[in-house]
Amino acid sequence: MISRLISNIKKTDAPIVVGLDPMLSYIPDSIKNEAYAEFGETLEGAAEAVWQFNKKIMDNTYDLIPAVKPQIAMYEQFGVPGVAAFAKTVRYCKEKGLVVIGDVKRGDIGSTSAAYAAGHLGEVQVGSKSYVAFDEDFATVNPYLGSDGVNPFVDVCKKYDKGLFILVKTSNPSSGEFQDRLIDGRPLYEWVGEQVAKWGEDCVDGAYSNIGAVVGATYPEMGKTLRRIMPKSFILVPGYGAQGGKGKDLVHFFNEDGLGAIVNSSRGIIAAYKQEAYAKYGEENFADASRAAVEAMTADIRQALGK
Amino acid sequence: MISRLISNIKKTDAPIVVGLDPMLSYIPDSIKNEAYAEFGETLEGAAEAVWQFNKKIMDNTYDLIPAVKPQIAMYEQFGVPGVAAFAKTVRYCKEKGLVVIGDVKRGDIGSTSAAYAAGHLGEVQVGSKSYVAFDEDFATVNPYLGSDGVNPFVDVCKKYDKGLFILVKTSNPSSGEFQDRLIDGRPLYEWVGEQVAKWGEDCVDGAYSNIGAVVGATYPEMGKTLRRIMPKSFILVPGYGAQGGKGKDLVHFFNEDGLGAIVNSSRGIIAAYKQEAYAKYGEENFADASRAAVEAMTADIRQALGK
Repeated sequence: MISRLISNIKKTDAPIVVGLDPMLSYIPDSIKNEAYAEFGETLEGAAEAVWQFNKKIMDNTYDLIPAVKPQIAMYEQFGVPGVAAFAKTVRYCKEKGLVVIGDVKRGDIGSTSAAYAAGHLGEVQVGSKSYVAFDEDFATVNPYLGSDGVNPFVDVCKKYDKGLFILVKTSNPSSGEFQDRLIDGRPLYEWVGEQVAKWGEDCVDGAYSNIGAVVGATYPEMGKTLRRIMPKSFILVPGYGAQGGKGKDLVHFFNEDGLGAIVNSSRGIIAAYKQEAYAKYGEENFADASRAAVEAMTADIRQALGK
Repeated sequence: MISRLISNIKKTDAPIVVGLDPMLSYIPDSIKNEAYAEFGETLEGAAEAVWQFNKKIMDNTYDLIPAVKPQIAMYEQFGVPGVAAFAKTVRYCKEKGLVVIGDVKRGDIGSTSAAYAAGHLGEVQVGSKSYVAFDEDFATVNPYLGSDGVNPFVDVCKKYDKGLFILVKTSNPSSGEFQDRLIDGRPLYEWVGEQVAKWGEDCVDGAYSNIGAVVGATYPEMGKTLRRIMPKSFILVPGYGAQGGKGKDLVHFFNEDGLGAIVNSSRGIIAAYKQEAYAKYGEENFADASRAAVEAMTADIRQALGK
């Protein structure tokens, strides 16, 4: 699966991913009103608004980007209809040829992790039939429970040619509370990074492994070290844009082949029309603002990489 | 909310929780066949079988137990219909007067954690209306991202009188891979335990805090230390029964008031009829076997606590 992500990155010359984290406050009133007119101010109405918003942004940006990263929390908050909108979004993005990274941050042990992995990346057996439930291409995974928690995901990735991005060093200010604590002289995130490299050893697909890592754009020096510790792992880099990361911070996340990282922006793209720089588009042309923001982000990263 | 859990524990004299982690292989053929006859061998059929199985076990045990812990992974694997069965199970158990601990192990940052918290414990706003989506009483949370990830959950608990169980030391064999590593001479799980005590300081509801911890029955000595570090936090103890924990291992998880812990068993209760000890009930009386297993577990724990 990582080779498909790389092929999409090369095709678009854009190592970026658009985070589909649609808060209702990002969605233009016209879309919300139409959804509420049909379903009322209900969970179904909210889910419909989210779906229509995503669809318009995808229709207007899919040719420029290799991948999307829907954040399931933003759907799950609307209960069952929200989860249905998540599933619909995943399906639609895949139809558009995009690689879909389910930002689910799941993690449990044994048969429980296996169930998450089956639902999000693999197949589930019902009597004599088997089904794909959510069917993302990659999922994000939390490593706190150790190998017992991660291995069932890795097994499913091997069987179905899927991939993971495992949390190593997250982009938030308090990520250091536990992740930076020193163990035998080295921070916890380095030990987790070493495990990511090990978990990924048997999952190589071309030049990279299907088992990648999450490292925040807000910590470029740590990214440099982790790049070295996990040479074959792709790094999913959140924290660009709205969280403060800039193009020049990103160079250390990439390898010399110009690959090895994919940079996420969520709010900065999907709610671009709310920024001063894109205000000229107006709320009704929000998807054009998103397209312009994708172009600007891609240009910023290409420049940082000396392209 | 913790005071309601304590009141339920006192009423039943049973500091236990039944884990509703229904794998299809646990469900008697008669239930599966009936569900498949109505919905086919589909995700809907699987979800219906899971729901009917849960319902029968609840109808047969609810008067003996204070709480249940549905494991969302086992529902999520069946996609949207599975998640609907999770929501239905939560609702039904609450109607029966049980405290519901959503074993969701969510954890993210900022507005994303806030969205999970709103969906699972709080309310979500849609236009002028507000809705509860899943509405569990407690949720389990993963602490790897630090305070930025946990605080949005704590805020929702304060607002809606709900609670958390934060992963500290999990029951699985490889939990030590990261959790046991020494930081300034003390294992990571102790540092996480100290944070749990801090996160819970402003959430006291009676003698205990609404912010509890998860510590595996398989690590009784660590439970002893953590009991001391988090005196006001309830400990949710998985790993009893099928995972190897025994009644006598559990005493250290409790305080001298006989409270402070709630012990989970999943497979040992819901699939009791598959054990030799309960084989006499037969597959058709699986819910009676579950009731007998609840009684045996309660007796074992009462004895360990010298009751």
